[in-house]
Amino acid sequence: MTTGLSNDVTLDVVADLAAQLRVDSIRASTSAGSGHPTSSMSAADLLAALVARHLHYDWDDPHSPVNDHLIFSKGHASPLLYSIFRAVGVVSEEELLNGYRRFGERLEGHPTPILPWVDVATGSLGQGLPDGVGVALAGRYLDRLPYRVWVLCGDSELAEGSIWEALDKASYYQLSNLVVIADVNRLGQRGATDLGWDVDAYARRAEAFGARVVVIDGHDLTAIDDALTAAAGNAGAGGSTGSQPTVIVAKTIKGKGFAEVENSPDWHGKPFPPAMADRAVTELGGVRSLVVRGPRPEPAEPGPALEHPSTLAPQDEKPLPSEEWPVYKTGEKVATRKAYGDALVALGARDPKVVALDGEVSNSTFAEEFTRAFPERYFEMFIAEQQLVAAATGLAARGYKTFASTFAAFLTRAYDFIRMGSISGADLRLVGSHSGVEIGADGPSQMALEDLAMIRAVHGSTVLYPADGTSTAALVAAMADTPGISYLRTTRGSYPGLYAAGEAFPVGGSKTLRSGSDDQVTLIGAGVTLHECLRAADSLAADGITARVIDCYSVKPIDIGALTAAAQDTGRIVVAEDHHPEGGLGSAVADALLAAGQRDFRLAHLAVRGMPGSGTGAELLAWAGIDAEHIADAARQLAARP
Amino acid sequence: MTTGLSNDVTLDVVADLAAQLRVDSIRASTSAGSGHPTSSMSAADLLAALVARHLHYDWDDPHSPVNDHLIFSKGHASPLLYSIFRAVGVVSEEELLNGYRRFGERLEGHPTPILPWVDVATGSLGQGLPDGVGVALAGRYLDRLPYRVWVLCGDSELAEGSIWEALDKASYYQLSNLVVIADVNRLGQRGATDLGWDVDAYARRAEAFGARVVVIDGHDLTAIDDALTAAAGNAGAGGSTGSQPTVIVAKTIKGKGFAEVENSPDWHGKPFPPAMADRAVTELGGVRSLVVRGPRPEPAEPGPALEHPSTLAPQDEKPLPSEEWPVYKTGEKVATRKAYGDALVALGARDPKVVALDGEVSNSTFAEEFTRAFPERYFEMFIAEQQLVAAATGLAARGYKTFASTFAAFLTRAYDFIRMGSISGADLRLVGSHSGVEIGADGPSQMALEDLAMIRAVHGSTVLYPADGTSTAALVAAMADTPGISYLRTTRGSYPGLYAAGEAFPVGGSKTLRSGSDDQVTLIGAGVTLHECLRAADSLAADGITARVIDCYSVKPIDIGALTAAAQDTGRIVVAEDHHPEGGLGSAVADALLAAGQRDFRLAHLAVRGMPGSGTGAELLAWAGIDAEHIADAARQLAARP
Repeated sequence: MTTGLSNDVTLDVVADLAAQLRVDSIRASTSAGSGHPTSSMSAADLLAALVARHLHYDWDDPHSPVNDHLIFSKGHASPLLYSIFRAVGVVSEEELLNGYRRFGERLEGHPTPILPWVDVATGSLGQGLPDGVGVALAGRYLDRLPYRVWVLCGDSELAEGSIWEALDKASYYQLSNLVVIADVNRLGQRGATDLGWDVDAYARRAEAFGARVVVIDGHDLTAIDDALTAAAGNAGAGGSTGSQPTVIVAKTIKGKGFAEVENSPDWHGKPFPPAMADRAVTELGGVRSLVVRGPRPEPAEPGPALEHPSTLAPQDEKPLPSEEWPVYKTGEKVATRKAYGDALVALGARDPKVVALDGEVSNSTFAEEFTRAFPERYFEMFIAEQQLVAAATGLAARGYKTFASTFAAFLTRAYDFIRMGSISGADLRLVGSHSGVEIGADGPSQMALEDLAMIRAVHGSTVLYPADGTSTAALVAAMADTPGISYLRTTRGSYPGLYAAGEAFPVGGSKTLRSGSDDQVTLIGAGVTLHECLRAADSLAADGITARVIDCYSVKPIDIGALTAAAQDTGRIVVAEDHHPEGGLGSAVADALLAAGQRDFRLAHLAVRGMPGSGTGAELLAWAGIDAEHIADAARQLAARP
Repeated sequence: MTTGLSNDVTLDVVADLAAQLRVDSIRASTSAGSGHPTSSMSAADLLAALVARHLHYDWDDPHSPVNDHLIFSKGHASPLLYSIFRAVGVVSEEELLNGYRRFGERLEGHPTPILPWVDVATGSLGQGLPDGVGVALAGRYLDRLPYRVWVLCGDSELAEGSIWEALDKASYYQLSNLVVIADVNRLGQRGATDLGWDVDAYARRAEAFGARVVVIDGHDLTAIDDALTAAAGNAGAGGSTGSQPTVIVAKTIKGKGFAEVENSPDWHGKPFPPAMADRAVTELGGVRSLVVRGPRPEPAEPGPALEHPSTLAPQDEKPLPSEEWPVYKTGEKVATRKAYGDALVALGARDPKVVALDGEVSNSTFAEEFTRAFPERYFEMFIAEQQLVAAATGLAARGYKTFASTFAAFLTRAYDFIRMGSISGADLRLVGSHSGVEIGADGPSQMALEDLAMIRAVHGSTVLYPADGTSTAALVAAMADTPGISYLRTTRGSYPGLYAAGEAFPVGGSKTLRSGSDDQVTLIGAGVTLHECLRAADSLAADGITARVIDCYSVKPIDIGALTAAAQDTGRIVVAEDHHPEGGLGSAVADALLAAGQRDFRLAHLAVRGMPGSGTGAELLAWAGIDAEHIADAARQLAARP
């Protein structure tokens, strides 16, 4: 094995390898009875040259920090990827032919990190490149290692706006370690793409977005090799010499290598029937069993820190927030979003792996506190929420503890990325501020009223919704160690501290703030509605109705023990939430109680059932029927029933 | 009033008008104590010239079909928009100063169509332009009227990928009737934007995406007027002479007109305190009360039909599907996605307002049947789901009954647009195919497992999930008349017809497929799980357990009567759904029963609780525990309890 550019594998061998990749892509998909052979065949020459001569990768040590990264943004070309894995000797022919797309096997229809050589799950188009931007950010600014990030894109997915968010950030952050290989085979699922074979149009777009662009014939191995050499040179040994990402626009033919299907619109996503596959394999020269490995990466130490544009952004003169763990007094008003910023700084001081990103609203989410304390570990993603979550996913793939924040309402922009992050098994820490009607005057476009439902429905997610500074800070610390997708919902306004410093807030727990032996009703709130529940309890007490009050700060997982006890002890439950009625706190409570087999309780569910407008927070909480008065009324009505 | 370009209002008056708009933007936001005066001031010259001399609009008849359309994609500049409304005499000074951002008033923090002069709600950045593409599609190809669509964009939002999806489609569809005015004031919420004042970079990007670009000083009224004249000329009298959208890249100064705040990063989204507002008004020449109206549109009849690229796409030779209402036999297998396509064609034959869009998967969703039958009413949106939903929103604003389809999983990409569509009050008909693990081999990236939760949480939404062809067709017809966001979830595989032709499927209803006087348990399913429930009922019957089976085809609204009766009659309910457990069918059933005060029932909720991989549909239904065997087991366990 050599290091650096390998000339060990000649282009003649690369041609043989490309034929093998095509043959194996056909065999794998035909064996499975599904998959995308033709979309694999268009990119086979590009990938054969890359893997044999340019990808620096130690296949025996997929977790080596100096490995290059290979991301199939066109995840449906999984037959090609898995055929590469066979060609480098890490997946057997038997697995390729009997495991692909089969139940319980790891060679899934679209790649996921169940495979150790895969960084991120792809298959929802336009995500691999944005994820790759995150990996490249890690490489250039945090790992400071010379690895390159090679991303294979299809041409259909270049219509996704997320691709252009990614290139915008790649050029802004001077990610010369990022190389995009665009496989322009002209054909999408149901016919020609928007731009067809107009490779110059793609080139103009990529150039305008700041990339260095090379246009090639994607089946000319010499041209491919030259383009990959140039891209690697641009990346530089330290990943730092160039200042632009590279986009290789490769004109290709879908189904290339099998005349019956070449450039045909009728063979997208269809395996060849066995007899046809046999003809194809014959035309491609038969089954091969080459084992070809390209250059291994050289050992490397982290290079010098590079300043990046966020670092260089003018910092204002406000004093840095304290890196001490924040302490809030009970009764003193603080916004949970402010406590998020405070805690993030303290966490960043404790753990150098903590990284923050924000969607150009850091002065609202209070991520700006981290920006000022640790500018080198903050990445501004501007108004591009898809890229915000994707960059967090890519950074997570490199082991960073990423916190990504924006207005909770605008996390809806990134739902597909959050969903795919879950499939990636990524540990993503999402923070949404300005939740609910409580924000007041800005109106419904800025009010998150679907976010709890959205994140709860994601597999393996954790949903946290604190009501004061102390609990917020504790939950931010908990998120650092929480696997999967975790979400913190914060509130715009300032509310009195409820808990003393040092109080524990385990994920899955709750706090019972008022209780007695004769509680007649339980009031359950979180965030702003918890404060309303406390006011309601006071009002009820004046009427002689004793109310238990539970802070359900952990919406998922939820504290089934406390809920069950409340149902059994009081038989009457009022849940109030600043969210639409479907899928939020009320649903979480109802689902949990029914799953626990509880039957003898009544539930009043107060939520935002109309379309809000502008107003003050107090006006809107009252309008929605989730303020103290409405909570107390609901409790009174329940208490009046047997 | 003149028609065509008005020279009635001189540029001197435009300058006065611009000062008035600035003064009123300041007064409105200061009066409200919130809002964005500086973001309004940067665009005041642009909008003064547009409204006074180029916007063809009959302010006395906002619903005139020949009116131009004015969309504030930077919705936070609402003070400017509302100041325009005052300047043209449709909003009073009193309303502007006492209604803006106040509870119960229509001048909300961000514009919504509560106002008759507003087409779509904005405020989530990067959406007004994609929505405008939908309006422009209607203008050029459906209304065939000479109106123009003028969209004001901020520079911060040009970082949203959705902007580039929009320009890509605008150029593909030759929307010369679309004019984008980009207000490049250099400053976002928390500092400089990505590209700052690099107007040439924006120009290169817009040009590369197919637009005609003019770069101007956004405070030079002559330059503005020339650019608007050129843009209007490009649009052509018939909206059809040019072939490119226009982008006017205007370099502007945030806070322009008030020296204290000009070009300052510290005044985003902040009203001026009263004394400061007084200084600003003085510097701007004091309060004015000009009433200035620009040209009114000429009456016009629809022009000749223009072929568009989707129309021109090669059509295959398959026969057109029947325009007769589709009929399916009971017992005969048909996929609900196929029935969607069949019904859409029949609906299109009945109603010329029916329009379809798809995200480049029309051969999977079966929207392609409509494409072949009515190519002139189909718009291909390629792999750009945000633009897919936005175009549907814009078309809905022009009164078209839009159906937008893609894989259900990929509708998550457009969640923010769906949410905003609800705020717009748009009637959007969304159709998601390939739901759940049932799809099998493709793996989790293609499986919608969060979509029911996602759409249920949207205000005013309707969620439909049919299990056979007859019910699908009936529900497609119902969607045509359903206000708000309606969603049809379809399934990949073919399943036996359950219902005879002509059976009614009201929204909010259900069907009880098995029932008797001694039912011991109720099995509730929808879509694929309904078929599993029927198999389970057979299995239970063999054991002597009588099961009621309910087809809960209307998930929202849900049939509370049938559910209550089931709870009361059987006391035991099994819900099975091909969706994650949060926020879907099980939650809908639980929420409804608890809201109805039901207590004496037990609920077993079977859902997809793990992360699926690939496999056959049957393997994955079994793995998830939602197939007939698991349903029957759950029923047996419930039945064994008292």
